Amino acid sequence: MTTMNRQILLASRPEGGVTPENFRLVETPIPAVGAGEVLVRNHYLSLDPYMRGRMDDAKSYAAPQPLGEVMIGGTAGEVIESANPKFAVGDKVIGMLGWQLYGKSDGAWLRKVDTTRVPLSAYLGVVGMPGVTAWYGLNRIIAPKAGETVVVSAASGAVGSVVGQLARRLGCRAVGVAGGPEKCRIVTHEYGFDACVDYKAGRLYEDLKAATPNGIDGCFENVGGEVFDAVLRRMNAFGRIAVCGLIAGYDGRPIPLHNFASVLVNRLRVEGFIVTEHMDAWPEAQRELGARVAEGALKYRETVAKGLEAAPEAFIGLLRGHNVGKQLVKLI
Amino acid sequence: MTTMNRQILLASRPEGGVTPENFRLVETPIPAVGAGEVLVRNHYLSLDPYMRGRMDDAKSYAAPQPLGEVMIGGTAGEVIESANPKFAVGDKVIGMLGWQLYGKSDGAWLRKVDTTRVPLSAYLGVVGMPGVTAWYGLNRIIAPKAGETVVVSAASGAVGSVVGQLARRLGCRAVGVAGGPEKCRIVTHEYGFDACVDYKAGRLYEDLKAATPNGIDGCFENVGGEVFDAVLRRMNAFGRIAVCGLIAGYDGRPIPLHNFASVLVNRLRVEGFIVTEHMDAWPEAQRELGARVAEGALKYRETVAKGLEAAPEAFIGLLRGHNVGKQLVKLI
Repeated sequence: MTTMNRQILLASRPEGGVTPENFRLVETPIPAVGAGEVLVRNHYLSLDPYMRGRMDDAKSYAAPQPLGEVMIGGTAGEVIESANPKFAVGDKVIGMLGWQLYGKSDGAWLRKVDTTRVPLSAYLGVVGMPGVTAWYGLNRIIAPKAGETVVVSAASGAVGSVVGQLARRLGCRAVGVAGGPEKCRIVTHEYGFDACVDYKAGRLYEDLKAATPNGIDGCFENVGGEVFDAVLRRMNAFGRIAVCGLIAGYDGRPIPLHNFASVLVNRLRVEGFIVTEHMDAWPEAQRELGARVAEGALKYRETVAKGLEAAPEAFIGLLRGHNVGKQLVKLI
Repeated sequence: MTTMNRQILLASRPEGGVTPENFRLVETPIPAVGAGEVLVRNHYLSLDPYMRGRMDDAKSYAAPQPLGEVMIGGTAGEVIESANPKFAVGDKVIGMLGWQLYGKSDGAWLRKVDTTRVPLSAYLGVVGMPGVTAWYGLNRIIAPKAGETVVVSAASGAVGSVVGQLARRLGCRAVGVAGGPEKCRIVTHEYGFDACVDYKAGRLYEDLKAATPNGIDGCFENVGGEVFDAVLRRMNAFGRIAVCGLIAGYDGRPIPLHNFASVLVNRLRVEGFIVTEHMDAWPEAQRELGARVAEGALKYRETVAKGLEAAPEAFIGLLRGHNVGKQLVKLI
């Protein structure tokens, strides 16, 4: 077995868009395991839009990612060495070990998962943070009633695709917004949404209007900008908006919002949230998501980049919307 | 007694700003009172920013004011004729009889008030819709804890002044935003706010920052635009924003919002509301507000225009922020 680890560090903060030069690949020794610790070989890295925010040195909900350190991020892997009684060699575990082949943990942020009915990678996606994010925003913020219309942006993504499928199960009309006819086809044909609006087709508001003949009661916002402005114009009285992401503004340029007045005119409730602050909701959410995946009722897709070296380009692609479903990096 | 009524009608819809030409004064016969009806001589008209929205033919929370009809609005007056067993001649009543000297009602939207401890005009202001609006937004949406910082825009106005005084009673730091040193002096010296930021002084963000050293936990938003953008930059995690008015955008130009991302970064809850949709809260609110006014603990100001003819100019002045406190028109 090799004694060397490979890691990707944050080399510099982006000025405008993220570039491959913001990252640096290094080789370091695999760390020794001390008392109470475990060594994990990562099988998958999770790439997520929130990482873009951490790359800046600006006030956010989390401290910025330090320069010169391993890029933060969720991981799924296998325990290969253990000095912690809670974990055995061979255990499949989810953690936050970052962009590297091997990671050490004291077990505090490590969680053993059952891969007999749900594949390991799904714990980073549909049954992991993205899935729970969808579940929380839909059930705890939007809380739609049967017959209402729920719109979700980035609908072909790891979060959006789950929002629409769960909304349909609640008896709602689920309408997605996605970029391009191929993504829209996946949203309607694969994830079973009632409709999908292609925001790149040049008729955003008209198409959204046609897809939401009874207006919009709930919005799960992953994008912001022009799409969100169009949604605001279609909101019904007493609508609820869960603000989960504003990816369009991550590149340093804040995108002005033009239709905020809808919040007053339609007496909307708008809530920003980050799912890791609502850990009390995770067990219920993961039970439901896992059961749906095991029975084949909850569809999901993964875009899998191969090898640690591919992580920076895959991450840049994620920010540009090149992925379909959960963006992973497979290390083994 | 004269048999003629005088009324102000909406003559045309504003294009851009409201002008006196949008209104027309007419004389009409005083209406005859039918079975179950009462005739009220109005003593005061209430002028309120929401009326600007009604003047447009656009989707809003209420139907537009029809052209050629009496301008809608709250009124305080005295019953001078009654064929309704619930009302006697001499009763002081609050209603929605609009911009006219005399108004007829079937009693459905008419409410008898006690003027022994609270003056009649106060039922249009501090103990009426503006006061209850302040009470509702503060207690039911912001729900601040002692020690938190609450910011209110248009702080010298009929709503804003009450928000700050109630927040102080809850043990909060109350910070107002108002236009000009004289209004700011009233906000701090008369209404007892901890600080007031003059948004016309040219240092909006810096002054707001200095006035809110611990950030902002609750915002009662009456204005929108630049002031709201500055507030968004100062919000603390899990802050609450009650959106009551966006007066800066009423003149037809939507004002783009630049710092909406704060909703996500700080996990804010933002709620638009209109107090007439929460009638269940009125009794409790009015009980508290009336008691505070009667004991002299809740200060308020009125700007009183004289005579029905003065209503259009007084309303235009209100939209431009010329009033201090509740804008009324005194008819008697």
